Amino acid sequence: MNKSRFEAFSDGVFAFGITLLVLGFTLPELHQPTDRDLTAALIRLWPNLIAYALSFGVIGIMWQNHHAIYRLVRRIDRMTVFLNLLLLAATAFIPFATSTLGAYPTMHASTFLYGLTLTWAATAYNLVLSHLVRSGAFAENVSPETIAATVRAYRIGWAGYATAALLALWLPVVSFATYLAIALYYLIPRGIDSDIEPA
Amino acid sequence: MNKSRFEAFSDGVFAFGITLLVLGFTLPELHQPTDRDLTAALIRLWPNLIAYALSFGVIGIMWQNHHAIYRLVRRIDRMTVFLNLLLLAATAFIPFATSTLGAYPTMHASTFLYGLTLTWAATAYNLVLSHLVRSGAFAENVSPETIAATVRAYRIGWAGYATAALLALWLPVVSFATYLAIALYYLIPRGIDSDIEPA
Amino acid sequence: MNKSRFEAFSDGVFAFGITLLVLGFTLPELHQPTDRDLTAALIRLWPNLIAYALSFGVIGIMWQNHHAIYRLVRRIDRMTVFLNLLLLAATAFIPFATSTLGAYPTMHASTFLYGLTLTWAATAYNLVLSHLVRSGAFAENVSPETIAATVRAYRIGWAGYATAALLALWLPVVSFATYLAIALYYLIPRGIDSDIEPA
Amino acid sequence: MNKSRFEAFSDGVFAFGITLLVLGFTLPELHQPTDRDLTAALIRLWPNLIAYALSFGVIGIMWQNHHAIYRLVRRIDRMTVFLNLLLLAATAFIPFATSTLGAYPTMHASTFLYGLTLTWAATAYNLVLSHLVRSGAFAENVSPETIAATVRAYRIGWAGYATAALLALWLPVVSFATYLAIALYYLIPRGIDSDIEPA
Repeated sequence: MNKSRFEAFSDGVFAFGITLLVLGFTLPELHQPTDRDLTAALIRLWPNLIAYALSFGVIGIMWQNHHAIYRLVRRIDRMTVFLNLLLLAATAFIPFATSTLGAYPTMHASTFLYGLTLTWAATAYNLVLSHLVRSGAFAENVSPETIAATVRAYRIGWAGYATAALLALWLPVVSFATYLAIALYYLIPRGIDSDIEPA
Repeated sequence: MNKSRFEAFSDGVFAFGITLLVLGFTLPELHQPTDRDLTAALIRLWPNLIAYALSFGVIGIMWQNHHAIYRLVRRIDRMTVFLNLLLLAATAFIPFATSTLGAYPTMHASTFLYGLTLTWAATAYNLVLSHLVRSGAFAENVSPETIAATVRAYRIGWAGYATAALLALWLPVVSFATYLAIALYYLIPRGIDSDIEPA
Repeated sequence: MNKSRFEAFSDGVFAFGITLLVLGFTLPELHQPTDRDLTAALIRLWPNLIAYALSFGVIGIMWQNHHAIYRLVRRIDRMTVFLNLLLLAATAFIPFATSTLGAYPTMHASTFLYGLTLTWAATAYNLVLSHLVRSGAFAENVSPETIAATVRAYRIGWAGYATAALLALWLPVVSFATYLAIALYYLIPRGIDSDIEPA
Repeated sequence: MNKSRFEAFSDGVFAFGITLLVLGFTLPELHQPTDRDLTAALIRLWPNLIAYALSFGVIGIMWQNHHAIYRLVRRIDRMTVFLNLLLLAATAFIPFATSTLGAYPTMHASTFLYGLTLTWAATAYNLVLSHLVRSGAFAENVSPETIAATVRAYRIGWAGYATAALLALWLPVVSFATYLAIALYYLIPRGIDSDIEPA
């Protein structure tokens, strides 16, 4: 295995996981529906649309983070592959957590499951990062400051997802709104550090 | 992230979305069907086949447009990534809009939903293009005329999809036919500018 | 677009289509089944397993043919892209034709649908090939004999699939067996011309 | 076909198969569920979660093995492509075997089916390896010791899976636990030979 095939496999799982989100939309069986019935059935899917947008953003962010980390890395050992599988397993699980959230947007169980899934992904990212730091896998031209800032940012992200997940045990709708707020915060491009070098 | 991984991820979503269109075909549960029953059930899927062909063409066009734009671009910033996610979210949604259209080809709700989805994709393309122009992301050898012609073409495409979507509120079948006409117009190769350089 | 992205997109559709074949296996709803019930339900899926193996072989052959053709080609124009979409649309349809064949392996409608799908794919291959020949898209070092032999082989393949499809109208099981025989004939490696050069 | 497209196609099936595992999670239809009902329904999915984790590990291992073998290979002939299709067919079947195992984790039929699938994959790997050895497909700098050690390791893996499959006929739960033990044994990185060279 080399780094480019490691990245291509991960990209494949991100791209398939993000596309499978569409399976969260299903129409109930309608027997001889009028146009009014179909309109009503489609409109009732609006929580699914919000959950779809949320998870599209979340997987999009995870994919960007994956790139941001691995372009600094020069060596991939078996532990990295193992921890990366843990991360991809969380990613591939998101379509199920999303369709459950879309179907039951105001319940404790569904909002907590969603938060658990994101916390699982964030935990995997933190474990990967610790391992990369410990094993000296970063390229030589990566400054210790960059690494320290990344580690800090990932801890904060983990704390945000875990807090929102716990919130689901008391206030499911607030928890759902917090997931949206976190995703928007990370998605919206902000001033500095926003450029990506050409291929 | 670099340009080639940005393109590979987008290609993954296009290829996967286009393949998921097949999920729009489902047979009703047939209990001990005769050959006649099965034939009838398959023949009743003809609107699904038209919707399948339409969406195959639509995603095929979107994929070609994606290439046509990004091979002129030399720099991909975070705003481009964000707007590209907006486009991919529309693409990944097309299988659901298609199966709804195939199941209810003559209804306002389904033809309007389909048109909204295409207008959403076209909006994302126009936003991406505006951003690329504003931020000077095109390569130096791309002439202002080429860029202006592309911007114009995308505005016309947007207007076509939006008009067909609005038509769905009055004449669903005419709207469906208009989607087909637009897709055919863009798909059929025409004289000039039809060559693609080798790898 | 360049040739490598054209091939990567096509490979994506082949790989996703071949993996989606697994959706042809579904267990009926079993209420509190005993181990005996589950065993019986799984064993009743044996026609689905044959259909799965058949379609895995068929898509595998199509993927090999795609490579065999395009490594001889130096230029891809819009007509090629259009005809390639026609081919990919047949490929992406195979999972539905397969699950229908697996569910009703002895019926006229299902075996004919399967044959129609393969004939559709073979037609697309023949159209692509004609266009490539007519437009002079082959690389200079490809001999006219190689091209003529390929054209002949594709016509024979088309005739085989079309004949087997027509057979389905009289003898469905013989038609199914013919699909298997054709796939095996193409799949089993035979003596000469069996090597593929390294990357 | 060249080696890199052969690998990319295989990687696509591995990545797509691993992502489709999520379809093993389905909620039963709940009519107007309370939060308690939904919690109970989600908790009842715990065997599915174990089966999901198991298969994620299994496909992850198979993907690593694929890389480990083919980076030593310099030539891919049609027999290799044929045997590779046999392996990919087993991989693409794993999501169905997994959802059956998750739904009926203590039954003979489901645990045996799962073991048969893994034995099928291991058989394909052993056949590929024999063919590569016999046909002299390995690169010149690969030592006979490396090849002999790999052949031995694959025979042991095959014996492990086949034994666990046979166990399913007497002790399904022990068989399930054995699959988990084998996967963990291969997944957990161990001391030597754990580094992977950069791209």
